[in-house]
Amino acid sequence: MAFINLAQQKTKEIWPNVHASFGHSEKITMARITLEKGALVAEHKHIHEQWSVVLEGELEFTVSGETQLITPGMVVYIPSNELHSVKAVTQCLAMDVFSPAREDFK
Amino acid sequence: MAFINLAQQKTKEIWPNVHASFGHSEKITMARITLEKGALVAEHKHIHEQWSVVLEGELEFTVSGETQLITPGMVVYIPSNELHSVKAVTQCLAMDVFSPAREDFK
Repeated sequence: MAFINLAQQKTKEIWPNVHASFGHSEKITMARITLEKGALVAEHKHIHEQWSVVLEGELEFTVSGETQLITPGMVVYIPSNELHSVKAVTQCLAMDVFSPAREDFK
Repeated sequence: MAFINLAQQKTKEIWPNVHASFGHSEKITMARITLEKGALVAEHKHIHEQWSVVLEGELEFTVSGETQLITPGMVVYIPSNELHSVKAVTQCLAMDVFSPAREDFK
């Protein structure tokens, strides 16, 4: 279980037009996320800290009311219970990291 | 502090020919890592769980005595206190995720 090709794992539609595959460990959930162009992740929050990394494409990310365009190389940090939302400006590939692990995604 | 361009942060040489820049949160350390071709990360372990994501290039990763070639799209999970080592087959760009946060990288 040390080596995982997340691109070959079964995906789950976690928001409309947003699909994810997951790796879970004791303290972390890693999610490989594809977003279709125009996909919207409505404003929400969760107890898990989140880091998002954009690998391909451009995401408009809003955290605590501040919005920025996120391109490959940038990362976003969302503290526990902080409101955030996302709009996929283009088709995107991203990795989301959560701690604690997301029991709701298992 | 929600939005960080790790590619523009100051780097630290954490192993010979391996440079990293970091983002730290309460439970997680995110590291953007560049490895020169041939760079070696000697076998080691730490209490932190680790997930590694290869973004560019090819890494030969050994975890608990099992070796695999890791290419973009693949992730590697290293449990707490598990021995691991790395060889950069080509120049590489990777993201490492740790929990708990790496106080030694602050």
